[in-house]
Amino acid sequence: MRILILGGDGYLGWPTAMRFSSRGHDVHVVDNYLRRSAHREAGTDSLTPIAPDLHARVAAWHEVTGRTITVTEGDLNDWETVETVFRDVQPQAVVHYGEMPSAPYSMKDRAHAVFTQTNNVVGTLNVLWAIRDLAPDCHLVKLGTMGEYGTPNIDIEEGYLQIVHNGRTDYLPFPKLPGSMYHLSKVHDSHNIHFACRVWGLRATDLNQGVVYGIQTDETRLDDRLLTRFDYDDVFGTALNRFCLQAVIGHPLTVYGKGGQTRGYLNIVDTLRCIELAVTHPAQAGEFRVFNQFTESFSVLDLAELVQKAGAEVGLDVAIGAVNNPRIEQEEHYYNPAHTKLLDLGLRPHLLSAELVESMFSVIARFKDRVIPDHILPRDRWRPQT
Amino acid sequence: MRILILGGDGYLGWPTAMRFSSRGHDVHVVDNYLRRSAHREAGTDSLTPIAPDLHARVAAWHEVTGRTITVTEGDLNDWETVETVFRDVQPQAVVHYGEMPSAPYSMKDRAHAVFTQTNNVVGTLNVLWAIRDLAPDCHLVKLGTMGEYGTPNIDIEEGYLQIVHNGRTDYLPFPKLPGSMYHLSKVHDSHNIHFACRVWGLRATDLNQGVVYGIQTDETRLDDRLLTRFDYDDVFGTALNRFCLQAVIGHPLTVYGKGGQTRGYLNIVDTLRCIELAVTHPAQAGEFRVFNQFTESFSVLDLAELVQKAGAEVGLDVAIGAVNNPRIEQEEHYYNPAHTKLLDLGLRPHLLSAELVESMFSVIARFKDRVIPDHILPRDRWRPQT
Repeated sequence: MRILILGGDGYLGWPTAMRFSSRGHDVHVVDNYLRRSAHREAGTDSLTPIAPDLHARVAAWHEVTGRTITVTEGDLNDWETVETVFRDVQPQAVVHYGEMPSAPYSMKDRAHAVFTQTNNVVGTLNVLWAIRDLAPDCHLVKLGTMGEYGTPNIDIEEGYLQIVHNGRTDYLPFPKLPGSMYHLSKVHDSHNIHFACRVWGLRATDLNQGVVYGIQTDETRLDDRLLTRFDYDDVFGTALNRFCLQAVIGHPLTVYGKGGQTRGYLNIVDTLRCIELAVTHPAQAGEFRVFNQFTESFSVLDLAELVQKAGAEVGLDVAIGAVNNPRIEQEEHYYNPAHTKLLDLGLRPHLLSAELVESMFSVIARFKDRVIPDHILPRDRWRPQT
Repeated sequence: MRILILGGDGYLGWPTAMRFSSRGHDVHVVDNYLRRSAHREAGTDSLTPIAPDLHARVAAWHEVTGRTITVTEGDLNDWETVETVFRDVQPQAVVHYGEMPSAPYSMKDRAHAVFTQTNNVVGTLNVLWAIRDLAPDCHLVKLGTMGEYGTPNIDIEEGYLQIVHNGRTDYLPFPKLPGSMYHLSKVHDSHNIHFACRVWGLRATDLNQGVVYGIQTDETRLDDRLLTRFDYDDVFGTALNRFCLQAVIGHPLTVYGKGGQTRGYLNIVDTLRCIELAVTHPAQAGEFRVFNQFTESFSVLDLAELVQKAGAEVGLDVAIGAVNNPRIEQEEHYYNPAHTKLLDLGLRPHLLSAELVESMFSVIARFKDRVIPDHILPRDRWRPQT
């Protein structure tokens, strides 16, 4: 299959590209190195040393496996880039990770909020137009986020909800309560893609993904030049990955507020499997399909305690710290989102275990000299300081 | 009260500015003449001859009434303009009409869709930041559209819906099924504004307005230099206004498809009253209040028949034409939206009548030499031609 990976230089994009390539698909990756430049500006970096650019990455991949991945270095906000890629590649599936993915980044100030929303919304509009006009049968697999739903007081369904109201019934998009300017951008994308399916007959799968953890996949293990990035800083780091790193370097685990914030999580190897299941089981023409992509739910405090316990088993003395919550969010709430559609397609989850956490400790320990410890605590607050 | 009218040069913005000024409020209008330039590019124009710019309009207003309206000619997408206006005016209420308002315009092509969404979303983000940082107590009255809801098979409520699901209950945003790239931009705005209320404690009223008809208000009648614009072309014209003009010039009424498309409508004088009610009864801090702003529902065919009948009474021979529907929309559907909140605040609707249509005929007849008849039929199709 001809598969386009947008955001193919990222934490998930690069391993996804290698996975499809290893399965014999023709893979083309697009990235404008937005994440790398944001890190450079902030003085932060990936824990893992990653190859300097996509050309170096695909060269290493070719050397190790004999397989070829092709590359475009370019911006999805630039229509000519998108048009050229779609004309040249004629993709049958597009996996779209190519967005600014950080809530704290989007909440820094007005300019970052505007950038996040325009970058994500315009990039996705360009992709929708390219599919419509240049590859109308192509299946769009778009990365959304579980954060689009927020934390309503009812069970969260997968994208839609059967609503009975005043004696009448309809099956309608699930109401959204996104928690940052970034999460809002994903909600905007979802509405735009749904429209493109309804009106132009495009086929799309929106993957509302939980928080991903883990470092290694079958392909990154082949050679250190194939490693994916691993972020632990205040802007791009996420809860469990950051906790594992803090455990290794002796930094108290930064639990925001009460720590009752509950979210869906999944292992990076399950992300790759979910993407593969979505791509190999495409949506119908005109269908806007939504899957909730995570395998288990944890509160932040659950995770901190799990990391603390796993640390004790390997002789790490892990402290749990309390941090004034920079976000505006419920710290204790109901949370019960459905996530059966990917299981129905064949997903066999790799659940979180002490063994997995310990194996993350050992990879992190290999690179611990690279840690920049003064960019772990949160700096961007959801409400301006008063 | 210090009131800022964004989009103060428009069909509704200019009459709104005069209304508040006539009531003794301090009114400042902002506009970048986007509508005028879109008309110039398309070779179309307002039926009514309007003053050449806002400076001429407020000068005439001052001459006729002795009252002063102040002006900024500028773009809401330009942060420095927005910042300067908020610093200087220190508004207590902002009435935000300042967006690209046309569904056909947004569906012309990729560039127009991207422009519509970025223009509307970024302009509104700038306004939210300006309120947050420069006028936090200011009440935002934002013009949304009934088109955000689409035509679900259940009763449409005012912004929110009590949802009972698996034995639990929450009061959540009403699901949206917008029908164009323009309507999507308004849905994006609504989500962004809701977030700003939840997280920053802003106060906002989102007015999901129906289709407005009518030409004259108490203030436009004072002097021809105070007339508001009246659009009837394929891009900016709306159903009833366009039908009245077609009746006067002997053009068949352009009913799209089966004509069963049902929407909420209201008289321009009721728009002014609704805005006044919203401004004088502000939302609470942190409250995102949604009103459905229309007074009655009609199908397109209802309106065509009403105009035909009113035409017959004044000796106009009005034909109803059938036009291949350029839009993708349900042409027969359930439609029962709530609209009680503005009535509860004191709105006394001016319902549609043959007399009102006849009075529109006579104003249109005064200016019928200005009609550009070759830009009435729709040109922009929702699906690319195949």
